[in-house]
Amino acid sequence: MKLLQDRIREEGLILSDTVLKVDSFLNHQVDTELALEIGREIGRIFANEPITKVLTIEASGIQFAMATGIALKVPFIYAKKKKAVTLSENVYTAPVYSFTRQEAYQVSVSHKYLGPGDKVLIVDDFLATGAALVGLVDIVKEAGAELVGVGCVIEKSFQEGRGLLEDKGVRVHSLARIASMSPGKVEFIDLDNEAFIRQG
Amino acid sequence: MKLLQDRIREEGLILSDTVLKVDSFLNHQVDTELALEIGREIGRIFANEPITKVLTIEASGIQFAMATGIALKVPFIYAKKKKAVTLSENVYTAPVYSFTRQEAYQVSVSHKYLGPGDKVLIVDDFLATGAALVGLVDIVKEAGAELVGVGCVIEKSFQEGRGLLEDKGVRVHSLARIASMSPGKVEFIDLDNEAFIRQG
Repeated sequence: MKLLQDRIREEGLILSDTVLKVDSFLNHQVDTELALEIGREIGRIFANEPITKVLTIEASGIQFAMATGIALKVPFIYAKKKKAVTLSENVYTAPVYSFTRQEAYQVSVSHKYLGPGDKVLIVDDFLATGAALVGLVDIVKEAGAELVGVGCVIEKSFQEGRGLLEDKGVRVHSLARIASMSPGKVEFIDLDNEAFIRQG
Repeated sequence: MKLLQDRIREEGLILSDTVLKVDSFLNHQVDTELALEIGREIGRIFANEPITKVLTIEASGIQFAMATGIALKVPFIYAKKKKAVTLSENVYTAPVYSFTRQEAYQVSVSHKYLGPGDKVLIVDDFLATGAALVGLVDIVKEAGAELVGVGCVIEKSFQEGRGLLEDKGVRVHSLARIASMSPGKVEFIDLDNEAFIRQG
């Protein structure tokens, strides 16, 4: 998605070889028009699948799950991190370790909102180590729902996340795939191949 | 907002005199069409103000700040709970105590995204004790920005939040104001008066 790559080049702050900040337009301040376009693009990629629900994880996946839900005209669910007082019924859970926050937590989804009849598209802002996404994939399997695929906004392709998901047989699409980065410079993987698959 | 009141009556689970669960359509599974309509309604209420940014707090305010940002064609910011590794620059902060999660935390907004030139509308899912919203109001003041008002989806009018905000001179609008509730029963405050103000 060229529009997204351009914004990452213009506004992304590369703090190290692995840390990219996109706080000005994606995950602290959010450009609502861009978020809607991201949702439309993810919706186009998975348009031939009869998706019933979009699934993400709080907090920074919510705006993109919402945008994708708008595009596909389906509800979205955001998995909660650790059990809250108001989430008292039975839940599917998976353990996740966040490298960004350097802490372990549980993600959970209520039994009520995911089941064997659902065809689920998982959406998140970043695919890096894949820890959170693998947790969501496990929850979809635990619920007996069908997983259509994973759509991510930005992928750090030099980290292990995509490999972990593909090893589980998951279809993965990311709108901006970063081959490598270093302070002041970001290299993207050419997305022509994805464009070809989409049109085919 | 009648559509919202009807959904609360149909799907809301009242666990006690103070705890209302709206997990099936607002803050775990999200009805994207309803969320968009909520954003349009909040946008209509504050339509005569030249708002530059919508501000909310992660996580459950995000879908409504996004919907309001879409309606008003402005970006939104979500305040972060506790400082993350990737939020390293200078931030405005306020302490908040969550009665739902029974824990204290800090909310923060980067200096970069809020300043004296901004006219800010705060949006959140619930107005109850007002703890999180008072924190956001303090952050807007600290940033030197102008606060246009607070728009909430559901207000528990029998709790102290509205009073705390009005004592600070803040204009508060909630789309569904709950006068009282008990298991199986919810009473709303008539919103005709708000409708009159809006048209006036």
